[in-house]
Amino acid sequence: MSPADRTHHPAKPAEPLGLWLVGARGAISTTLAVGLAALRQGLAEPVGITTASPALAGIDWPAWDAWHLGGHDVCAREVGTSAAELAQAGVVPTGLLEPVSEALQAFERAIRPGILEPSAASEPGDQGGFLQASRTLAALSPREQIAALQADWSAFEAERGLSRSVIVYVASTEALPTPQPAWQDLKAFEAALDGGERQPASMLYAYAALASGRPFVNFTPNVGANCPALHALAQREGVPHCGNDGKTGETLLKTALAPMFHARALRVLSWQGYNMLGNRDGDVLRQAGHREAKLANKDEALRSILQPEAPDAPGLHSHVAIDYVPSLGDWKTAWDFVHFEGFLGTKMSLQFTWAGCDSALAAPLVLDLARLADLAQRRGEAGSLEHTACFFKAPLSGGTHDFYRQYQALLAYLATVSEPGA
Amino acid sequence: MSPADRTHHPAKPAEPLGLWLVGARGAISTTLAVGLAALRQGLAEPVGITTASPALAGIDWPAWDAWHLGGHDVCAREVGTSAAELAQAGVVPTGLLEPVSEALQAFERAIRPGILEPSAASEPGDQGGFLQASRTLAALSPREQIAALQADWSAFEAERGLSRSVIVYVASTEALPTPQPAWQDLKAFEAALDGGERQPASMLYAYAALASGRPFVNFTPNVGANCPALHALAQREGVPHCGNDGKTGETLLKTALAPMFHARALRVLSWQGYNMLGNRDGDVLRQAGHREAKLANKDEALRSILQPEAPDAPGLHSHVAIDYVPSLGDWKTAWDFVHFEGFLGTKMSLQFTWAGCDSALAAPLVLDLARLADLAQRRGEAGSLEHTACFFKAPLSGGTHDFYRQYQALLAYLATVSEPGA
Amino acid sequence: MSPADRTHHPAKPAEPLGLWLVGARGAISTTLAVGLAALRQGLAEPVGITTASPALAGIDWPAWDAWHLGGHDVCAREVGTSAAELAQAGVVPTGLLEPVSEALQAFERAIRPGILEPSAASEPGDQGGFLQASRTLAALSPREQIAALQADWSAFEAERGLSRSVIVYVASTEALPTPQPAWQDLKAFEAALDGGERQPASMLYAYAALASGRPFVNFTPNVGANCPALHALAQREGVPHCGNDGKTGETLLKTALAPMFHARALRVLSWQGYNMLGNRDGDVLRQAGHREAKLANKDEALRSILQPEAPDAPGLHSHVAIDYVPSLGDWKTAWDFVHFEGFLGTKMSLQFTWAGCDSALAAPLVLDLARLADLAQRRGEAGSLEHTACFFKAPLSGGTHDFYRQYQALLAYLATVSEPGA
Amino acid sequence: MSPADRTHHPAKPAEPLGLWLVGARGAISTTLAVGLAALRQGLAEPVGITTASPALAGIDWPAWDAWHLGGHDVCAREVGTSAAELAQAGVVPTGLLEPVSEALQAFERAIRPGILEPSAASEPGDQGGFLQASRTLAALSPREQIAALQADWSAFEAERGLSRSVIVYVASTEALPTPQPAWQDLKAFEAALDGGERQPASMLYAYAALASGRPFVNFTPNVGANCPALHALAQREGVPHCGNDGKTGETLLKTALAPMFHARALRVLSWQGYNMLGNRDGDVLRQAGHREAKLANKDEALRSILQPEAPDAPGLHSHVAIDYVPSLGDWKTAWDFVHFEGFLGTKMSLQFTWAGCDSALAAPLVLDLARLADLAQRRGEAGSLEHTACFFKAPLSGGTHDFYRQYQALLAYLATVSEPGA
Repeated sequence: MSPADRTHHPAKPAEPLGLWLVGARGAISTTLAVGLAALRQGLAEPVGITTASPALAGIDWPAWDAWHLGGHDVCAREVGTSAAELAQAGVVPTGLLEPVSEALQAFERAIRPGILEPSAASEPGDQGGFLQASRTLAALSPREQIAALQADWSAFEAERGLSRSVIVYVASTEALPTPQPAWQDLKAFEAALDGGERQPASMLYAYAALASGRPFVNFTPNVGANCPALHALAQREGVPHCGNDGKTGETLLKTALAPMFHARALRVLSWQGYNMLGNRDGDVLRQAGHREAKLANKDEALRSILQPEAPDAPGLHSHVAIDYVPSLGDWKTAWDFVHFEGFLGTKMSLQFTWAGCDSALAAPLVLDLARLADLAQRRGEAGSLEHTACFFKAPLSGGTHDFYRQYQALLAYLATVSEPGA
Repeated sequence: MSPADRTHHPAKPAEPLGLWLVGARGAISTTLAVGLAALRQGLAEPVGITTASPALAGIDWPAWDAWHLGGHDVCAREVGTSAAELAQAGVVPTGLLEPVSEALQAFERAIRPGILEPSAASEPGDQGGFLQASRTLAALSPREQIAALQADWSAFEAERGLSRSVIVYVASTEALPTPQPAWQDLKAFEAALDGGERQPASMLYAYAALASGRPFVNFTPNVGANCPALHALAQREGVPHCGNDGKTGETLLKTALAPMFHARALRVLSWQGYNMLGNRDGDVLRQAGHREAKLANKDEALRSILQPEAPDAPGLHSHVAIDYVPSLGDWKTAWDFVHFEGFLGTKMSLQFTWAGCDSALAAPLVLDLARLADLAQRRGEAGSLEHTACFFKAPLSGGTHDFYRQYQALLAYLATVSEPGA
Repeated sequence: MSPADRTHHPAKPAEPLGLWLVGARGAISTTLAVGLAALRQGLAEPVGITTASPALAGIDWPAWDAWHLGGHDVCAREVGTSAAELAQAGVVPTGLLEPVSEALQAFERAIRPGILEPSAASEPGDQGGFLQASRTLAALSPREQIAALQADWSAFEAERGLSRSVIVYVASTEALPTPQPAWQDLKAFEAALDGGERQPASMLYAYAALASGRPFVNFTPNVGANCPALHALAQREGVPHCGNDGKTGETLLKTALAPMFHARALRVLSWQGYNMLGNRDGDVLRQAGHREAKLANKDEALRSILQPEAPDAPGLHSHVAIDYVPSLGDWKTAWDFVHFEGFLGTKMSLQFTWAGCDSALAAPLVLDLARLADLAQRRGEAGSLEHTACFFKAPLSGGTHDFYRQYQALLAYLATVSEPGA
Repeated sequence: MSPADRTHHPAKPAEPLGLWLVGARGAISTTLAVGLAALRQGLAEPVGITTASPALAGIDWPAWDAWHLGGHDVCAREVGTSAAELAQAGVVPTGLLEPVSEALQAFERAIRPGILEPSAASEPGDQGGFLQASRTLAALSPREQIAALQADWSAFEAERGLSRSVIVYVASTEALPTPQPAWQDLKAFEAALDGGERQPASMLYAYAALASGRPFVNFTPNVGANCPALHALAQREGVPHCGNDGKTGETLLKTALAPMFHARALRVLSWQGYNMLGNRDGDVLRQAGHREAKLANKDEALRSILQPEAPDAPGLHSHVAIDYVPSLGDWKTAWDFVHFEGFLGTKMSLQFTWAGCDSALAAPLVLDLARLADLAQRRGEAGSLEHTACFFKAPLSGGTHDFYRQYQALLAYLATVSEPGA
């Protein structure tokens, strides 16, 4: 199907559609699956879902029961097991496990082996050969891998009778890869794929999605579609995409607070951010390479808000640490210390402690992004979606890290959508 | 001089002008006086002054040395003594005392006895009969009081050769007065003045300023011009004014953070704010009536942001406390605890500790407001200035407590001013 | 049975014994009941139980399954319902509800209507006439009330074949009563009882326990046995008792930290303590009279540690607030701010935030106290137990609030017990 | 003079004596010098000096004006300049600079070039050749270096007519040296000195002090006398010494709080400590080797208190970070997060923020230690002083890190001293 065809026959919101989660058995996907089932059954309110707030009424979103869940993963632990663990940890209510169990099983049946990063440690307890299948997939050539992913999506859509799907990447943080020259140009990139050169898994998923006309959302700091080659692919194929790295906790707060200091002309001297987390994500981040990817995004946001004229200028001292604290589980706890100077050099401070449940913050934002990516697809929009910047630590476009400016951009976009005749 | 005349002959920014501080010997006024002298001499940078930030360049503000300071007070302690105390407490640098001493003496010479609230406790140590003069003034009829204030201003302007003055009210918090029916209507209010009915001092200053064509800024929670009668006066006389209650610390943070929770559709369950302060302001606030005035402003802002549809609806539990902790001096310290609910009912929390030097935060905002009030006057604007809402806990107009919306309104206003030909 | 007889025939640790909880359906009792059953079944470790720590091995404590639970309450909600609520709130693990259900039912069957304070608000939903029975009991004369309590205890012991019982008072905080002259002297007090003069319920339970030779533990700030008359009763009857007001959270921290400042000769200028809680206890404390009782204990501890020579001397500014924040449930959250002065007048600060689950902290201490009261009884000790001071905000004896000195006293006492031949 | 002679002729407290500070121009020494002069003149109270508290009255300490200050340093900045900087930063009151200037000059005259660690970076601005002299000293053989130090001390004592001196090491943290086999045995160590083998500067000062009969106090994490060879030297020479690493801030709090968790049988799951500091000490600690020395002491204390049976057992997760935050200057700010488990596995947390002025906390402790080391010397005590453990992060002896046990040991020791006839 050519890009032109796609925009001529926009999908209707009412038709069933797919939400395909890469990292399907992780905490975010599991929480989303439990929550989506609960929303359908009227057992949960849409708390934490930006696009469901009364302020944004008037958009013709697909109903909650129009969404079908599927996904890739490289881990064999079943979604139901993940859900029980999350209930144990207080992330999802124990009382929901029973009513959503059928929905979780339907999701589980639509989970396929994903591409296992060669660097990933092997996990114990793979009874069903699931991990083996991931390893097999990892050993194929890039073009074969892409074809396998697309085949999984097409089979899923055919089996469930879906008109379309959004691909959302919520897998673990990869090690920061060395950028390749071929990422700068679509032709060079496709030549590299043809030539069998290995690429980070997140880029293969992005390519597979965009090349097949499926919107792609990257909720992680992994590369995904964040290079000129894949930006060009999205334009060529006329497909919307967005990312990177969901803004759920400490960085959200930073980008909500830093504009205040800037607006008041207060001079921030030091901003120290200490993050602690204990879930699988935290475990992965213990490895230095993986942590770097995350930290770069957290620090850059601050500098661009506080020193918009010269983000690299000296003056602001900032530091971000992420430590793995197993006892915290999914409860990300962060302490930030902001040392600032007021009139006549007087030094003052602000410190905050954020104790947030990561999956409970991320899952509703994934629903928001799936809605927005699908809406853009239906409206024939292509390329990176500037109005989604408020959801990301490192937005692919949008021009500012200031949370309130980003949010105003989202409101402005949705206002044009909800206008009669728009 | 009629209102029409005033707008026909706008003052030039370059001409010397007056900044008259009611509460001239308090910590805010003293810090402002030290800072203004330091700015003039190039000994301080304009940190904390919103309108001096690079983002707002392009406005033709009066030079720092165009401003002449004068003021009313009911306290006999000299400004130089206040400044030495503030240096001792670390609010202003010790090294500035010597270079600014001449400027402080010039300010001191322009301080006149103000109206002493009958309820105010007597202060010891009035050697110069200053307090006695305040008591005498307090015993006059309202019309005589107003005339006395205006006479002080005219004398000051004449003596210094000033083209105009802005009156800024930074005195201590009054006891919350019982609203009078006469405040609803300008004619009724003026009849009450004629009839000799006592009014809160802040209203007398406001009336005296507006009736004489001088812009009035109320930086306190006191009534000031916040009633229909005085709003009407400002319109009749064609004079700009703004207030109430400078937004310097915890409330600033609240109105910067609450919009984030609202934008993310997170449900705030409880917001507890504990404020501690140790300066004279804190001492005054120990008296229950005085504290009520302050607390009402602090709590309302939160509700209007988090529950815009129904600020009075149950659901949000909030509480604000202000305690006097003498050892803190001018260092206001606040701890806020925000308990909120995310997706699927998961409870999370944010807590912050703000340690801010009250006077160092307030003084530059007073300079901002004096600049903005004067600018509005020169541009022929009358009535309450909506674009100053970001400076106040209880803005007289502007329509929102959301700090970022308020700041955007200020930027939008100043953009129209700085446009060529505007 | 005379006191002499009691000490001549000490009970054996191995015989079954009763733990009678006044306030049997509250959160502390319910948590204790769940925990005791879990300990018996090997489903829980004795975390939080001081006397079960390895450092204190060597004492011949009754086995966990020797303890039988019974209790009084004025509320009709069943213990099983309380347990389910606590599991919902994350206080006890959901997985324990099933294994302990039989034990909870056995406890439930041994709960009798208590004395309803006349001032207590009526609770809805009393289907079984339980509340009515409490009201009836409340209307009896003091002597009849005491007899009724003792009859309940005797019936419980007979039915279960228990050799003895400890009575632990964990009911809600009463309004601070006006002290009566008769409390100063045992004869006068007994005459008042004979004369039908009303007494606070906590004193009636204390009298009934001590007069019948049963040890009494008061875990609340209520009067209990804290008056000369009841101290004399304990001596006359040769019965041990202890109290008042379990030291579980913020006060524990205060009494652990304040000695550090004192030992280092650092001068504490201000100590502000802000407590927030959302359980039934918090609801009761909203009423001013009830809160006073609690606050007095919290503040006195601090002064006696920091200013041992002159607790009432000026210098230390301290303040304790308790606020009801419903969303917190059983999770008591406290923020303390300590402002102190070091060498040459330099001001510094310590602040802490304590987030503790009240019932999970209190229940194991009740087990400790039941063990210690029973041990003292078996050893023939009478009167208030000095070595239990570390468990209380307002210890009846022990001479210090310093937590570490209190704990050393406990260790020293237990060392004499565990010595061979002791 | 043989050890036997020394104890036969104990010095009298009333005779003038020396306090020799290695690191004489640093913040701790400067604060001490300002404070000692202020104490002498009655301009300061002995706040922060443990041995000056009313609880410890009855010891015959040397009067404040009996102490004469001298010292070594490798930095050429004068003490008066340091003092002015500290006043600027709010560490010492500006008002004291004038009254103490003469005393600072007397101190300055008694400062001699110290041994510059070969690894130390060169400092700019050495006008007087001071740094050059330090380099020269650093180039000598160990035996020559030791002789030079002792000659400085003897000259100081002769010039001022002092009966004795205490040597206190308060220089910057050295890089963690590789332990040498010769440190295990005094003979081997002396052979190494004779053989010209280089030793860390702190060990040379320790050797020089102990070998010449002067008590040695090591307030830093540097090796100092912390090896079997130097312990043996102290015994052979009959000289008292103590160390290592002054316990002034976060570790003090840790060792005051951890015993509470242990006493209550609460299970600490994680203890994360984040330290920020901005003074020269912080700058030095940026270098990885130097930081390791500090961190090891901070972490070990915690483990030995919480897991006394098995400090190395898994279970407790702990982490200590030290970051350089220049804007903080001497104001060390630390945030600790303690995650712990109570009854039935309920997780709770304590977090604290400590904002302490390092020099204002350390200087009075140095006065305490000088007093205690001199007292021990006068009483003929030799070897490491167990009763000083409460002052150190890594006490050379004393057997516990529990602050309160350590403090009880100090009280017990002083009680024997103050007894009549003792």
